[in-house]
Amino acid sequence: MTAYQDLEARFRRLYALQEAAGVLHWDMSTVMPEGGGGARSEQLAVLEVVCHETSTDGELGDLFAAAEAEAGALDPWAQANLREMRREWRHATALDAGLVEALAKAAMACEMTWRKARPDNDFAAVLPALKEVLGLTREAAEAKADALGLSPYDALLDQYEPGGRIDRIAPVFDDLAAFLPGFLGEVMERQAAAGAPLAPEGPFPEAAQEALGRRLMAAVGFDFDHGRLDRSLHPFCGGVPDDVRITTRYDEADFAKALMGVLHETGHAMYERGLPANWRLQPVGQARGMALHESQSLLVEMQVCRGPAFAGFMAPLAAEAFGGSGPAWQADNLLRLANRVEPGFIRVDADEVTYPAHVILRTRLERAMIAGDLAPGDLPGAWNEAMVELLGLTPPDDRLGCLQDIHWYDGAWGYFPTYTLGAMTAAQLYAAALAAVPEIPEAIGKGDFAPLMAWLKENVHAKGSLRSAEELLTEATGRPLDPGVFKAHLRRRYLD
Amino acid sequence: MTAYQDLEARFRRLYALQEAAGVLHWDMSTVMPEGGGGARSEQLAVLEVVCHETSTDGELGDLFAAAEAEAGALDPWAQANLREMRREWRHATALDAGLVEALAKAAMACEMTWRKARPDNDFAAVLPALKEVLGLTREAAEAKADALGLSPYDALLDQYEPGGRIDRIAPVFDDLAAFLPGFLGEVMERQAAAGAPLAPEGPFPEAAQEALGRRLMAAVGFDFDHGRLDRSLHPFCGGVPDDVRITTRYDEADFAKALMGVLHETGHAMYERGLPANWRLQPVGQARGMALHESQSLLVEMQVCRGPAFAGFMAPLAAEAFGGSGPAWQADNLLRLANRVEPGFIRVDADEVTYPAHVILRTRLERAMIAGDLAPGDLPGAWNEAMVELLGLTPPDDRLGCLQDIHWYDGAWGYFPTYTLGAMTAAQLYAAALAAVPEIPEAIGKGDFAPLMAWLKENVHAKGSLRSAEELLTEATGRPLDPGVFKAHLRRRYLD
Repeated sequence: MTAYQDLEARFRRLYALQEAAGVLHWDMSTVMPEGGGGARSEQLAVLEVVCHETSTDGELGDLFAAAEAEAGALDPWAQANLREMRREWRHATALDAGLVEALAKAAMACEMTWRKARPDNDFAAVLPALKEVLGLTREAAEAKADALGLSPYDALLDQYEPGGRIDRIAPVFDDLAAFLPGFLGEVMERQAAAGAPLAPEGPFPEAAQEALGRRLMAAVGFDFDHGRLDRSLHPFCGGVPDDVRITTRYDEADFAKALMGVLHETGHAMYERGLPANWRLQPVGQARGMALHESQSLLVEMQVCRGPAFAGFMAPLAAEAFGGSGPAWQADNLLRLANRVEPGFIRVDADEVTYPAHVILRTRLERAMIAGDLAPGDLPGAWNEAMVELLGLTPPDDRLGCLQDIHWYDGAWGYFPTYTLGAMTAAQLYAAALAAVPEIPEAIGKGDFAPLMAWLKENVHAKGSLRSAEELLTEATGRPLDPGVFKAHLRRRYLD
Repeated sequence: MTAYQDLEARFRRLYALQEAAGVLHWDMSTVMPEGGGGARSEQLAVLEVVCHETSTDGELGDLFAAAEAEAGALDPWAQANLREMRREWRHATALDAGLVEALAKAAMACEMTWRKARPDNDFAAVLPALKEVLGLTREAAEAKADALGLSPYDALLDQYEPGGRIDRIAPVFDDLAAFLPGFLGEVMERQAAAGAPLAPEGPFPEAAQEALGRRLMAAVGFDFDHGRLDRSLHPFCGGVPDDVRITTRYDEADFAKALMGVLHETGHAMYERGLPANWRLQPVGQARGMALHESQSLLVEMQVCRGPAFAGFMAPLAAEAFGGSGPAWQADNLLRLANRVEPGFIRVDADEVTYPAHVILRTRLERAMIAGDLAPGDLPGAWNEAMVELLGLTPPDDRLGCLQDIHWYDGAWGYFPTYTLGAMTAAQLYAAALAAVPEIPEAIGKGDFAPLMAWLKENVHAKGSLRSAEELLTEATGRPLDPGVFKAHLRRRYLD
């Protein structure tokens, strides 16, 4: 066995254990009775310990040295795999076990406090725990920065978005931030002039919503022999590439929420399913970062399923599913409903136009907190100021402000930028797909996603982590991330 | 940390990993899409490797020596835990890794061949694979016999029934075998004289069966905050003590099958739930062998739920659930249906009276094969001879004979005796419970299992593996296993 083969065997074990943990997480969120929580925590904690031991084993350093010395003999996929193995190993070994444990404990305690502080609108109650999490996160960021040769913020970002660098992202976000307020004004004016769309009359039974969701998942290309649709409190895409499990929740007063949610998660699922089957359980076989992952869900949901071709396909199916008829059920009316813009306080409820403002705000604030330029105690004020600047709204309380998202309280710092990077990437990839395969919209109008999915599979899914996200995007679209494409998409959709 | 504490920590990890594997198995049997099978096998195989490494770690020998030297300071539960840890370690280390792997591979290959050979009625097709499995099993039995100081057959039996010894079981089985043919003749005569019971008219919708099953599970004491009921091809009790998951399958032509199946699995589930909570994830906290486990399911199903008090409680609920009325739905008619005796070829379809004959036959034959006294090629003939002797029936083909059960083909040798040991233990425990708590039948007539379950929890469930099964039974009932109690139960139920 060569050193490289030894590494492959170790990572295969590591990834199989992580897959096992993934199934346990899915189970916990969908079917586990509440009383099973204690035992499940223990199972997951032990799996995490075993994974940590596997990925920080003392023999790995020498194996990497030996494998890299003989890397010339490897094919490009194996070389990329070796590169990604080392990247993961650097992340895993950058922090000592004590810091990893302290961070996990602090994040769990803070999240629990936050779960009560949010409904109570009591930022002061969670502030001490947030300070603790931030302090340890900054310590971890410093340690990873040293190990990886990055800035502390980039070291955090790199965990979710390999190769992502804030110095390249910030100007793109600033460009968008400058564009959005004026654009939003135009959109609101246009919308007011056009009058409100009609609301289809409910209720919309859950069973009918689910059946329609499955019908549309199948149209996108979801293979139910290799996946499931279930219910959970918070929708997600879990499972493993050969058994992708998406979830949703239903609101009987509004069928579009669950439907668009299902299509969004189906986009994630198609990415997982399309990853290179020859490289399962190896780092190079995994999705290339959270921004690209989000781009696949947003490409399906935002670029395609909130567009006119898909609305034409879906409108009669929806009318049939819910026994609806009349003008409210016409494709153009449903399309106007799906693309309604309305500035608001809550990120997860935001539309495509205002969503980036929420993300830019969070990215700026977390960057300042990691740099030590913003104290957590000053967060509510800074948050509210930024909301006025970006969306012209002043949150009436912290529940609708800095208490709304779990991320910081749960220790996920450096994650937020990936949402809007994903939205921009989605626009750029879809534009390139349309240029390469002009018949895509006509096919989608008939419920046939095959031409689009074939292009995505070839240019995105099947590449796994062979290249950096930036290289992949450049190969697929002819240029690196260009906010102009996203802005052009917004202008076309909301002003034309 | 003392050596004993070190061992506890290692076994806690081992058991948490085994629990994780248990949840993955449940998922595979209930909700996993077929295409997820390959990935799941890999996850389970890796978990098994990690478990094997944990339970055969080279440091364990010294730790056991050190822990046993200081065992005087331990309380009785910890002492018993140490004894059980060593027992498991002896089993785990008795076989070298090559034999373990060869046996697993041979069993998997043989099972796959058997899955086709059974419907094809082609014993010759599976014979080579069966020879391979038997050969390796005999090798493993020899190795374990050496390590444990047991006979080869006992070494296999001990895997499922710790402390079980064929020299004590065989006379009990011979006694039953001598009793059954004559008794069966009397029962059949009595049944013929009484005339056939009435069959309630179906169909019985699955949803109504499931709702009634849940109602009866709740009556037994099943806590749905700590468990689930689902569907699977083969009913089983899985999950973990704080999240016990039972399954069933439904036949819309016969509601009693699923219902009695659910009650059977609920008996298993109550045992798991009642295990000592302070000893979760430790050997002493586990169920005390498969015979005692089967005794808990058979006590609920056979002793109680096929008895008159329960029939009185259940009959009106069943009539209501399926909209039935008239004499077919009376308690005494349903009871006669539930206790119908009919010699047949298939073990899993057998009634309480003929079931032991199927088990005794298998026990005798597998013992002879392990001893080398019966060649697998002679199995069909030996099987059919024994069927004539024990039940007076000649199987028309091997599908209804030696091809029917998965056990030997899958490598589970030494398991069969536990079914009938369980049936006898159930009768003995229930008789003791009735003697100690005379109000049990009256309570069950009202759907109240609490008095029975309190006795079982105290005398069986909460003892975990503190004592041997024989000691536990002696403490709970005043004597070791006594086939007279089971025979008395049969006489009372079928002849009085």
